[in-house]
Amino acid sequence: MKEKLEQLRRRVQEINDLESILSLAFWDQATYMPSGGGEARARQLATLGRISHEKLTDPAIGQLLEDLREYEKELPADSDEAGLIRITRRMYEKAVNIPSDFISEFYKHQSDSYHVWMKAREENDFEVARPNLEKTLEYSRQLADFFPGYEHIADPLIDYRDPGMTVSVIRPLFAELRKQLVPLVEAITEKPEVSDACVRQTFPQDKQLAFGLEVIKRLGYDLDRGRQDLTAHPFMIKFSLGDVRITTRVKEDDLREALFSTIHEAGHAMYEQGINREYEGTPLADGASSGVHESQSRLWENIVGRSRGFWNYFYPRLQKVFPGELGSVDLDTFYRAINKVERSLIRTDADEVTYNLHVIMRFDFELDLLEGRLAVRDLPEAWRERMKADLGIEPPDDKTGVLQDMHWYQDMIGGMFQGYTLGNVLSGLFYEAALKDHPEIPSEMERGEFGTLRRWLTENIYRHGSKYTAGELVERVTGGPMTIEPYMRYLRSKYGELYEL
Amino acid sequence: MKEKLEQLRRRVQEINDLESILSLAFWDQATYMPSGGGEARARQLATLGRISHEKLTDPAIGQLLEDLREYEKELPADSDEAGLIRITRRMYEKAVNIPSDFISEFYKHQSDSYHVWMKAREENDFEVARPNLEKTLEYSRQLADFFPGYEHIADPLIDYRDPGMTVSVIRPLFAELRKQLVPLVEAITEKPEVSDACVRQTFPQDKQLAFGLEVIKRLGYDLDRGRQDLTAHPFMIKFSLGDVRITTRVKEDDLREALFSTIHEAGHAMYEQGINREYEGTPLADGASSGVHESQSRLWENIVGRSRGFWNYFYPRLQKVFPGELGSVDLDTFYRAINKVERSLIRTDADEVTYNLHVIMRFDFELDLLEGRLAVRDLPEAWRERMKADLGIEPPDDKTGVLQDMHWYQDMIGGMFQGYTLGNVLSGLFYEAALKDHPEIPSEMERGEFGTLRRWLTENIYRHGSKYTAGELVERVTGGPMTIEPYMRYLRSKYGELYEL
Repeated sequence: MKEKLEQLRRRVQEINDLESILSLAFWDQATYMPSGGGEARARQLATLGRISHEKLTDPAIGQLLEDLREYEKELPADSDEAGLIRITRRMYEKAVNIPSDFISEFYKHQSDSYHVWMKAREENDFEVARPNLEKTLEYSRQLADFFPGYEHIADPLIDYRDPGMTVSVIRPLFAELRKQLVPLVEAITEKPEVSDACVRQTFPQDKQLAFGLEVIKRLGYDLDRGRQDLTAHPFMIKFSLGDVRITTRVKEDDLREALFSTIHEAGHAMYEQGINREYEGTPLADGASSGVHESQSRLWENIVGRSRGFWNYFYPRLQKVFPGELGSVDLDTFYRAINKVERSLIRTDADEVTYNLHVIMRFDFELDLLEGRLAVRDLPEAWRERMKADLGIEPPDDKTGVLQDMHWYQDMIGGMFQGYTLGNVLSGLFYEAALKDHPEIPSEMERGEFGTLRRWLTENIYRHGSKYTAGELVERVTGGPMTIEPYMRYLRSKYGELYEL
Repeated sequence: MKEKLEQLRRRVQEINDLESILSLAFWDQATYMPSGGGEARARQLATLGRISHEKLTDPAIGQLLEDLREYEKELPADSDEAGLIRITRRMYEKAVNIPSDFISEFYKHQSDSYHVWMKAREENDFEVARPNLEKTLEYSRQLADFFPGYEHIADPLIDYRDPGMTVSVIRPLFAELRKQLVPLVEAITEKPEVSDACVRQTFPQDKQLAFGLEVIKRLGYDLDRGRQDLTAHPFMIKFSLGDVRITTRVKEDDLREALFSTIHEAGHAMYEQGINREYEGTPLADGASSGVHESQSRLWENIVGRSRGFWNYFYPRLQKVFPGELGSVDLDTFYRAINKVERSLIRTDADEVTYNLHVIMRFDFELDLLEGRLAVRDLPEAWRERMKADLGIEPPDDKTGVLQDMHWYQDMIGGMFQGYTLGNVLSGLFYEAALKDHPEIPSEMERGEFGTLRRWLTENIYRHGSKYTAGELVERVTGGPMTIEPYMRYLRSKYGELYEL
């Protein structure tokens, strides 16, 4: 059986190698590739993707997994070997359950749909994108049906990004969160508006980039195993546990853009850099889920990076970088500016408090659409109503409403958004657990020390890679199921003080 | 048969896609990869290389080539279809003739040998590298023997880089060249030494890079289909005909380093960018040979980039970039500095006139070693003697002698060097032919116009990719065989005037 396991390991490593190089080709496309390289690159990505898929769906992998079934049962569930078999089986079944004709048809549709969406956005007209979106909904339903036995039709789709999560877990959690957030947003937005003028001056790109790098190095992002480049949209990408890169973008007229996206992506990257090095080349060397990944980017970006303690240490340094702009701005003014809460239309621009309402709305719409309770043509109207109800504002057009996110238009309907809010919920939960073990974390942070927090996260989350699901990680850390309470306590405490609620 | 040809095309395109992405992974390793990425990257490169090799040696390709044999005979030899079949057959036979055990053993040895060479260089001791080099010689002989029927044992090895070239063609050409170069070097070095102090001041990196880019854009390097990055050793690399990149390095205390290596690599890149776009994704979309490739880098670097006409246009611009350093240096002083001839030990630092003597010596040693007329252990002594005879100086140690080039230590013995001098010879030959068709080229150059020359090269060389061998290209251009005379006329005329011979 050791030999069979070794064979399986070799096969998954080969696939892992191909996927890593695919990622590299994608990274290059987003960073340095000249425009003339696009056409051939698309073909090269397709070729490599096809070969990787062929390797993953090789019946020999199915046979090995079958041969290892009894052996797996004898292994402790939390052993690395059992984890490797389990995660490989999950990947394999996801890959073989779907007919390849369906995949190529759906890919083609996604690519068309994406281009039509760009046109629709330009023309600010949902109707342009609607027919494709209706087809996408059809494809999404079909995709779910390749995994029979689900409780809710969205479950197999959610499982792609958040393995083990289901509608029955998420729906009540999000409903409760929404119930508590709507009045909190109302209470905050009744207070006088905060000024963020101090972060809206002109801040030269190179200085912003240098300061951002200084910050994330201090947080613990290892630049010997990573680097930062500029892209249109920031992302984190991994080529191996020794090479986990991030990208950022800079707005010279808004200091927050690069700074917080840099910390956000560094949070993702520190997670990957913290995975057990022995998992290298296997599917265990990956984040547990979209939600757990987002919990780390949001924890570092918001709970740490937008905290008063963090800026106690970093603000004098930032002032030295921008003496003309910030020299006479006091810490409190700056702290309020970077934590300004407001009713806004665009999810990606939203603050910590309102953000989840944007996400929960999209999650609910996905369920409504999949269940057939909402028709695609009625989406813009539903969007307006829900925004009014939850955030008290209505988008004046489709561009700032239903057309704003690319997810549904380039991917599928179902499972696209829950990770963002699961991430926030988990960030609060994990941070509270870390504080319980190490009450000294906040005072360390005020001195610019982040080692205790990072080590706790590494020990309890990072090093395990994808061995445990989000639910299992929470269970191991808190002894119970996922709950929104720690996150809500965090929000109420921070914003209660900020807005004198 | 059209269908078989289409199948063949699809298969070579798949291999081409894999090889392109392999190149990208190599480029990234040399430019931006953090040090921590090295270990996994090596494995990923090996995996992708193995898969590409498996695809190339798939018996189905052999069968298709067999099926197409009669069809190919009916095609005009200069048709693209015939070219595609011919070049694919060449690749295929090279790949299948060698047992895979031999390949992996030889690769392993090459990698070991390279590391030992680095150590030997550090310790300045050939004896450290000798045992590995002796094995390399053995492997090189075995490799040649997988291609029986050769006239000279070096022929199959030369064929890797310079298809169609043989010892019987190169040896007399190089012997004659040496006979003419040795006295030319003697005559020049008897003259008073030229001062190159003006290019040895301090020139900031960013200004050097900006000026270099301005120059190669003007020459015709298309930055929409290319880019330039920094590496330890400059190179040109292609990911598709729409993405042909170059790298450079800068010495702030020597203006020549970045400038001429930039033009050199841009020469390689313009060749690739000029290949018929219809060849994209096939083995035709490649340079004809190492020699023809080098003819283009050297033509643009030396015949164009070190000419007086070129600097008539560019020198006032360069002076504007470095007014403090060059403002009071006249064009003639600068022109002499960048064309300074001297007896020197290191091939890569050598000037236009002495360079070929370094190369011919190495070529001759490869033949001597392969023929068994020279033992590896006697190489350092032979090196010293030959340097004395041809260049009038002797290396004081191994580092500046037999250990200076990595070729033999990381690759094989045989076929490693002829391309450099073939390139020089061809650069003279092609340039003279271009002048015959377009006598206006030099006066255009003085105005900073390079279009006529570039179009002539594209029409006669670039667009054909690898369809014709070097010999066929020469035959098509001049109606005769390769000859050193145009190149020697060029050297004698330029350096005769410069050194008043």
